[in-house]
Formats: sequence, structure tokens, C-alpha cells
Amino acid sequence: MGCVIDGCPAGLEVSANEIEAELARRRPSSAFGSRDETDTPEILSGIFEGKTLGSPIAIIVRNKNQNSGDYDKLKDIYRPGHADFTWQAKYGRRDHRGGGRSSGRETLSRVAAGAVAKKFLSLHGIAISARSLTSPDIEKIRSEGDSAGGIISCCVKGMPAGLGEPVFDKLDARLAEAVISIGACKGIEFGAGFSAADMKGSENNDQPGGNGNGEFASNNSGGILGGISTGQDILFKAAFKPTPSISKKQKAYDKNGNIVEIEIHGRHDTCIVPRAVVVVEAMTALVLADFLLLSRVSKV
Amino acid sequence: MGCVIDGCPAGLEVSANEIEAELARRRPSSAFGSRDETDTPEILSGIFEGKTLGSPIAIIVRNKNQNSGDYDKLKDIYRPGHADFTWQAKYGRRDHRGGGRSSGRETLSRVAAGAVAKKFLSLHGIAISARSLTSPDIEKIRSEGDSAGGIISCCVKGMPAGLGEPVFDKLDARLAEAVISIGACKGIEFGAGFSAADMKGSENNDQPGGNGNGEFASNNSGGILGGISTGQDILFKAAFKPTPSISKKQKAYDKNGNIVEIEIHGRHDTCIVPRAVVVVEAMTALVLADFLLLSRVSKV
Amino acid sequence: MGCVIDGCPAGLEVSANEIEAELARRRPSSAFGSRDETDTPEILSGIFEGKTLGSPIAIIVRNKNQNSGDYDKLKDIYRPGHADFTWQAKYGRRDHRGGGRSSGRETLSRVAAGAVAKKFLSLHGIAISARSLTSPDIEKIRSEGDSAGGIISCCVKGMPAGLGEPVFDKLDARLAEAVISIGACKGIEFGAGFSAADMKGSENNDQPGGNGNGEFASNNSGGILGGISTGQDILFKAAFKPTPSISKKQKAYDKNGNIVEIEIHGRHDTCIVPRAVVVVEAMTALVLADFLLLSRVSKV
Amino acid sequence: MGCVIDGCPAGLEVSANEIEAELARRRPSSAFGSRDETDTPEILSGIFEGKTLGSPIAIIVRNKNQNSGDYDKLKDIYRPGHADFTWQAKYGRRDHRGGGRSSGRETLSRVAAGAVAKKFLSLHGIAISARSLTSPDIEKIRSEGDSAGGIISCCVKGMPAGLGEPVFDKLDARLAEAVISIGACKGIEFGAGFSAADMKGSENNDQPGGNGNGEFASNNSGGILGGISTGQDILFKAAFKPTPSISKKQKAYDKNGNIVEIEIHGRHDTCIVPRAVVVVEAMTALVLADFLLLSRVSKV
Repeated sequence: MGCVIDGCPAGLEVSANEIEAELARRRPSSAFGSRDETDTPEILSGIFEGKTLGSPIAIIVRNKNQNSGDYDKLKDIYRPGHADFTWQAKYGRRDHRGGGRSSGRETLSRVAAGAVAKKFLSLHGIAISARSLTSPDIEKIRSEGDSAGGIISCCVKGMPAGLGEPVFDKLDARLAEAVISIGACKGIEFGAGFSAADMKGSENNDQPGGNGNGEFASNNSGGILGGISTGQDILFKAAFKPTPSISKKQKAYDKNGNIVEIEIHGRHDTCIVPRAVVVVEAMTALVLADFLLLSRVSKV
Repeated sequence: MGCVIDGCPAGLEVSANEIEAELARRRPSSAFGSRDETDTPEILSGIFEGKTLGSPIAIIVRNKNQNSGDYDKLKDIYRPGHADFTWQAKYGRRDHRGGGRSSGRETLSRVAAGAVAKKFLSLHGIAISARSLTSPDIEKIRSEGDSAGGIISCCVKGMPAGLGEPVFDKLDARLAEAVISIGACKGIEFGAGFSAADMKGSENNDQPGGNGNGEFASNNSGGILGGISTGQDILFKAAFKPTPSISKKQKAYDKNGNIVEIEIHGRHDTCIVPRAVVVVEAMTALVLADFLLLSRVSKV
Repeated sequence: MGCVIDGCPAGLEVSANEIEAELARRRPSSAFGSRDETDTPEILSGIFEGKTLGSPIAIIVRNKNQNSGDYDKLKDIYRPGHADFTWQAKYGRRDHRGGGRSSGRETLSRVAAGAVAKKFLSLHGIAISARSLTSPDIEKIRSEGDSAGGIISCCVKGMPAGLGEPVFDKLDARLAEAVISIGACKGIEFGAGFSAADMKGSENNDQPGGNGNGEFASNNSGGILGGISTGQDILFKAAFKPTPSISKKQKAYDKNGNIVEIEIHGRHDTCIVPRAVVVVEAMTALVLADFLLLSRVSKV
Repeated sequence: MGCVIDGCPAGLEVSANEIEAELARRRPSSAFGSRDETDTPEILSGIFEGKTLGSPIAIIVRNKNQNSGDYDKLKDIYRPGHADFTWQAKYGRRDHRGGGRSSGRETLSRVAAGAVAKKFLSLHGIAISARSLTSPDIEKIRSEGDSAGGIISCCVKGMPAGLGEPVFDKLDARLAEAVISIGACKGIEFGAGFSAADMKGSENNDQPGGNGNGEFASNNSGGILGGISTGQDILFKAAFKPTPSISKKQKAYDKNGNIVEIEIHGRHDTCIVPRAVVVVEAMTALVLADFLLLSRVSKV
């Protein structure tokens, strides 16, 4: 696994340790029934004497401890909730050994890149912090051979006003694209989100409040109006489906169209949501850094 | 208002009437307290003898009946829930007369382009149909000088499997970007969406069902796995906030940072959701047509 | 004909007169045997009270005086040197009446957009000036029913150093793309260009000279090294082929693959080079404005 | 050094040996006074059981034998003809040790990617072959401590008609961008190129010839009309400047703006043109593969 980060400005202090620290936040905790992995990034290019050069930063993390035997039994079966069939339909072949591009392990690349983006944003006083709102009884669900989903809430502090383009590159649209692109993510809402559908205009509109001076009584917009940042915190929530790999018996199609019964064993996360928190932060950081770095001059 | 549609293949039969028919679906209904407008498209280029030429299709719809006097009173005030302040922050100036790029009228361009995209999709047997799930008491809300939001559900039938790219151009990510880019849209969810966060893996995974033969017992994935279409119907829901323009008294900041009280009069929709249905269809059509038209060869 | 200019910053003073003045430079001069046309731009959007709004600037110029009868005789023939066959191969149909996207008239859109880009560049002290190096005996060539090509030389003064990206968006590569995209352009060279192939390194390298202080004794690089501007003037030359429409008898294929003899009559330019000067300037301006406006932050 | 090839279809047979064979063509020959290097590609991802998976193909070639001592003496000097100053102006810092992104060694990545593109093109019957037209007396020039440039001619056989877009992605414009992006390339011309500027229309127009049946008497267009391939061979020539690193004494600016005298020693190519042949082929292959793979549907 790895990533190439292009467009990072020169002169940014970045160390392998900082990247490794973010990768560690993505690592499994036994409390959530997650797999044990250690991820050590190797920086191949783009950093010289501790600072970025402006050239692409290539980072690889070599896979360890991969037991492809776990996957061989399932190589002709399209596991429910996985991209096995869609991948096969698209490419005509796939690497069934896991750990590939349609695997959750792919998020490692996102987190490594996000670590660099966050470092850049910190120079602009922008801080991103996400958290899991989920509290199912993981032990119980695991003992049933099942899995759980959850919701992640994200808040960005220190946003300047005026970021985002008014039609084709709206800030919320680009964040939605980035967050929905995380494997298990099935929904996103900004500010009041779906509950805004049940509010009246007089309730949902953010009116002046607090101490005045540009403060507002609410942030139902989630810090974005007309696709452009207002300067309030950016707020959004993302929904994650339960891990599709479960040991509980399931029906599935095999490659010949027959229905078979399967049990998926191996070291699968009962709930990936706590591990996805840093991935949500990473995708948010990458979008914001992109807007700041490649910002179109908007007035003369 | 207008649009330029580039990349439409040559030989597609498209008439101004077909575009006008879609624009009519976006027109206000008195039942929803919407403004009266008639929108007649003028095709400037790209169509010759009733068929597309492969060159850009330019369509304009000239504004009528615009009463900029309605807007002059508010030209130094940042209306709550509108992009007035963000636009000012970004560009340093704005056309306060309404009807511009941050206005709902901008969706007219989307619908005109969507009409062409739908025509193309129909050749591939793909049909998009959205509907409003909203039923507030519009008359009551209007009489209060207030407004309402709502939810739109969208279903795409006839989807081929294998559409979408596995990481950077996932089908759901691109649909999310497109739909969230509609002015008042604050959230989107695919298939089971936010409710998937409360499901177990064994419930959420779509397992074989129906008559077999590739049929499934459920469609919690919304027809997309790993960012690639499964061949099931694509299902998503989008949340729309209430119209920010209300005649009820509100507080707002003016351009000097003072808090003022305002009432917004004029012909504003009490609820734009019924009119947004065709806009959601249009954005969906544009994304799907783009994937079909500019599809990367995925296997040799 | 027309164009949509997206990404122009707000607050730039632009008038229809300024655009018309550039379009006039593209107009035919009887001295070069060119067709008579008057081109009046209509600005549809993006400019309010004499200044840009930051939203797209749509400009159209309506065709006049078009005599499609001239073209009807040739509608089933692939004229030598024209895009008739390639267009047919690609799209399966074409508008044979001329004035379309594969016609020289298409450069009108480029010039209109270039006028706005030049205005923006002038705020940065950047001035572009091209000229024709061609001096054939046009009257003689015209009297023979033939046509002539030529070379255009372009110089950009006031360039800042550091513009351009080092691999994928080199300044010279992007200029080459833009200039070669002009219909009749068949070659481009920067600085010493093709003659550099015959020079020794010690001759071609630009060494300090003049009064020192960053001055150089030569500008064989054409103001670009490693894809990035040096701060010296940008210099390039572009080669234009002779007008393919000639009244002299020629052989051509018709749509059935038969060889036929044709004479192309009508008001065709004997030499388009003098009219292409402003087009070369426009394309140069558009590339430079794009780099300045969408410039990636290159250092923290 | 390395590259990531995204968008290569699944199922293409590619081996490290094939890539290494192309890299070997880029290797120095003592006859041209070139440096000795061996380049062994390591494929990190995207290929499984000898065939591509459709996922990105990451290839790295580790640097050997690098003697950064050669470069330390020059670290505060802007070598004539090099990107030292422009890089410094843009990024504020640079890796002075050579072998970086503004070095000729960067072309290694292009050749590795080009090897895969060529393999794909061969399935479509498209073959690219370039050659050096240069024959200076290299030994003499080297003995003088100087260097030489040259011209590379490229021919593409087996082209289908209809490839390329009519305005924004013309085939010749995209090829020009790609080829000019090669470090030392200062010019490109298609077909008759600069000599077309001196031809009459009746000479330059490609008229039917040969045995008829779609054959032509000439190929002055270089196989492209209106930005779209005609089906004739694509022909272009590219000009390369002499290697800027020479041991002959030169003047240069240092970072304080002082003029200093330098001699650049080390294993520099007297003429890089023979090594650039495979780079020109690679860039051509990448552009053509991109058009074939991501081809927009142009007619229904």
C-alpha cells in the first residue's frame, strides 16, 4: 500500500514519525475486535533534510502478516456486501487475496496522505477533529459472529470564509465526494442535514446571536452556504455500514451463479467505525488543503 | 441563464420541446406557493436537422419578469441561509438583483442539460425517477410567512453492472458530489444509508433472494458496492433545507456588521422540494451519462 | 460563435468595446485577400456595472452574411487539408455549411476570451505581442488561385519567474498545447528552438551578460527552463500551413471513396497568418492567466 | 525514481522484463559519451500472475552509484541551461544532489510507463518508432568539453481515424504538450511543419494518390487534420537542445547574484538525443493510450 502526494508546497516539515502516528490511530483496538497490524511508512521521495521539496511525496507501507490462505476458499464466491462481484464485472479478474484496492486496508494510503495535509492546514490554524458516535455492545455482536456500523461526526475549526467555488466545486460537494469515497460510508449530511428537512425556514436559518460581532445563534448550515465556507465551524456527519465480513452463516452467489452458504473467518473488525475516524479526518484534510493550495484567485 | 453541454455524442435526437418539457417540471405550482415563470430554451449551437453534431450544445433561457426592485432594499444585508455573505467574502462584490449563480434559478441550467443526458441514457435503457417524500401543510406554513424543506428519493432502473471507478471516481462519490451541489441540499444517503449505522452486518448485507438468477433479497447497498454499480437499481435519498427567503421577521447582519431586522417579500417558494425533483434527476443523469460516455476501458 | 470564460476573478473592468477591438484585429484585410466580416460581441453574463462578477462570462457573436450555398456543392466531398473526413470519421455526420467548430471562424471565440485574459495580465504588468514574419506576394498567389502559410513570432514581456509546474504542467508544454490547438498551426519552437539542435552547449546555454544584475547575454531558452519561467521574456515561434481552401483545381475523395476534381470558390483568405497573430496572443494570454489564477501554492 | 500508472485496463500481460528492456534503450552508450547506469524496475502493485489487475501499477527504480559529491560544489550556483534558478524561484529550496525531478533521470519514469502503454497499443495494432536524425562528431565535441543537441523523428503506424477531440483535446496539441514536456525538448512540428509555412496550399494539401482506395500522394498533415487522426501515419519531429552540463568553462550566477566561472565535471552525456528516442516514443504511447482508453463516445 502507498500513496503519492502531489502538490504539497516546499518547506513543510514532515517526518515519518508524524505519519506513523496517524497510521497508529487507524490501527485496531482489541476493544473493537479489530485485527492486529503494524504499519511503518517508508518515505521514498519528496522530503529532503526533514522538509518537503515541492516534488511528489511517495510513501509505501509494506504488507506483513498476510495470510492469503484465508482468502483462497472464497476466491470463486461473491461475498455479500463486498465489491467482489462489481470488481469482477468491471475488470474480469481480481486479486482475491485481500489487502487490495477494494479492501479496507486501502484507507491506509488515505491516512498517510491526510497526515501531510493536516500538517499543512495547521500552519493556517485549521484543525479537524472527528469522533465516533457509536456505542453498540461490540462483545455481544462479535460473539454472535456479526458486525456493527455507526456514525462519525466531524468538526473543522479555524476555517476562513470564502473557500469553495459557487457551482462546480462547492466545498460541501467536494467534501461529500471525498467522504462517501471511503469504503463503507453510505451517507453524509452537513449541519442540520436530514433533520433540516423537517424544520421551518425560521428555525433552520442561522441568525445573528452570541455576542454579535459576526457570531450566530446556530450553525445549521454546517459552516457552508452556497458551497462556500462562512467562517463558522464546518460540521458534518457520515454514516458507516456494518463490516460485511462476518462469520455468521450467509448466502452468496458463486461465479457460476449458484447460491452457496458461506462463513467468513479471519481477523475481521467487528466494527470499523473507531478506526474510520482518522480516515474521515484525512479525507477532510485533503479536500481543504486542495482548496487552499490550488485556490483560484477570486477577485482582482 | 444557460448551459453549454460538451461531450454529447453526435446523432442524438434532441428537440427544444423535450428540453422545455423538463423545464416545465421545474416550474412552480401554485399548490406549493411557488413563483410563476415561463422558461423557453433557445438552442444556439450543437444541433443540426434535429440531431446533435458532437459539438457543444449551447442553450440559453432569457430571464423575464424580473423585478429587481424587490432586491434593492436588501442589497447591503446578508440574508440568513443565503450565500450573500460567502459570495461577498469570496468575490468582494455581487449582483444583488437575484436570479444569479447563487440563486435557485441556476438549477434551470442543470435541468436543461439533464434533459439531454436523460435522452442519451434512454438509448441505454436507463431510466431515472425521483419523487418528493414531503407532505407538510404548505398553506399553513405560507400563511405564517415561513417555509418548509423535505426529502427527495431517487431510483435508477436499468443500470449495467461495472460502472464507476474503484477509488477516485466512485459512482456513489460522484453522485454525492453532484446532488449535494444543488443549492439547498444538505445530505445524501445511498440504500439503507444512515439507518445502516444501526444494522448488523447480517441484516445489512444483501444476500441472494427473489428467484435466484442474480436476484437479491434486499438492496441496502443502493446498487453500488466498492464505488461500482452492481446492476441492481441505484437508490438514494437527498435532504433539502427549507427555503431561506421568508417573510417572517428575522435578524441579519448588514455589511457593516450591524444586526438588523428584515422581512423578505416577493414571490418565493414556500417549499422548493417538488420543483427540485427534476433537478435531482438531472444531476443523476449527468453523472451517469458522463460515466457511460467517458468510460475508461477497464479490461483488454 | 461564442465562449464561456470561467474562473475570471471578480472586479476586473471589461467592456464589450475592448473585446470588439481585439475581434477587429482578427478581421480580414483586403491586402491579404481575406473575407469581410463584422463581429459584434454580446455579453450575456458575468459582467455587472462594467466589472466582472466572478461568475462565468458568456459572450456570443452571431453569424452574419453566411452563404451556405457556397458549401452545398461540397457537402459530400472531403476537401484536402480540411477536417471534413476526420470529422465524418469521428461523428458520423457534420454541418457542412461552414462556420462551425472545425472552421477558422472558431478562433473568434479564442480571441474574445483572450481579450479578457489580456486585460487581467495587464494588471500584473504582463504584455504579449505577436507578429507575422511572413511576406509572400499575396496578390500573385491569389491570382494563381493558390494560398500561403507563414510564421508568427510571439514575445511576452513582464513575466515573473517561477510560473509553471516541473513535470505535468510545464509552462512551455501548456503553451505548446494551446498554440498547436489553433487550426492551421503545424509547429512550435521556444527560444532557439530547432536551431538549438545544431548548437553546442556552450553556445546554447544562456550565460550572464548585459549589465549583470540577473541579465543574460542571450535568451536561447525562450524564458523557460525546466518548464518554469526564468523571468526573461518568453519567446516562441509558430508555423502555420497555407489556407487549404483554394480555387485552383485539386483532387479529393468523395464520401463513396471516388476521386473527384474540385475548385473551392468563395471568400477565402489567401493567407490567414496576419489574422492569426491575435489568436496566438489570445492562446498565450489564456495559458498565462490560467497559471496566474489557479496557481498552486509552491512553498510554505 | 518511479511512476504510478493509473487507468491501465485489466488483463494486459506485462512483465518486469519488458519494462527493463525499454529502460535499457534509455541507457547510455559509450559511443555518445553517456553515463553508465543500470536500471532495474521493481513492480510494487497492479500486476498479479503476470497480468494487470486494473489497479494502479506502481514501479520504482532505485538510484545507484550516485556521487552527490559531484554536486556539492555547485549547490549555490545556478548552472546555465539548467532549472536550478527557476526551481529555487518557485520552491525556495531544492535537492542539489541531482537525480531529481528536474534531472534527465526523471525520464526513466516516463519510459517505464511508456513500456506499458506500448504493450497496450500493440493490441490495437499501433506501433511507434522514433529515431535520431543527429550525427555530429561526438568524440570531437566531447574532447572540447562541449555538448550537442539534435532532432528526433517519430512515426506512428496503424492509427485508426477519428482519434482526438476537435477543440480542447486535439491529438496534435496533446502530443505537443507531452513531447515538449521532455526536459531538453525545445520544439515540435507535425508533418511538413515549419516548412509548410513556405509552401503553397496546392503543394501542402494532401491529395488522393497511390492506388486510390483512400491513399494519398503525400502526408504533409502528419496524419492529423482538425486535431483528429486521419488514419495516415502520424509524423512529427522534435528538437532537442544540447546537454547543458559541459566541462568547458562557463559564466553563471550564484545565489547572491554574483557572476562566477564554473566547469561542470562528472559523467554527463555529450549528446542525450540517442537516449531520448525511447522517451519520445514513451510520451507518444502515453498520449495515444490515453485517447484510446478514455475515449469519449463520439456518436450514438
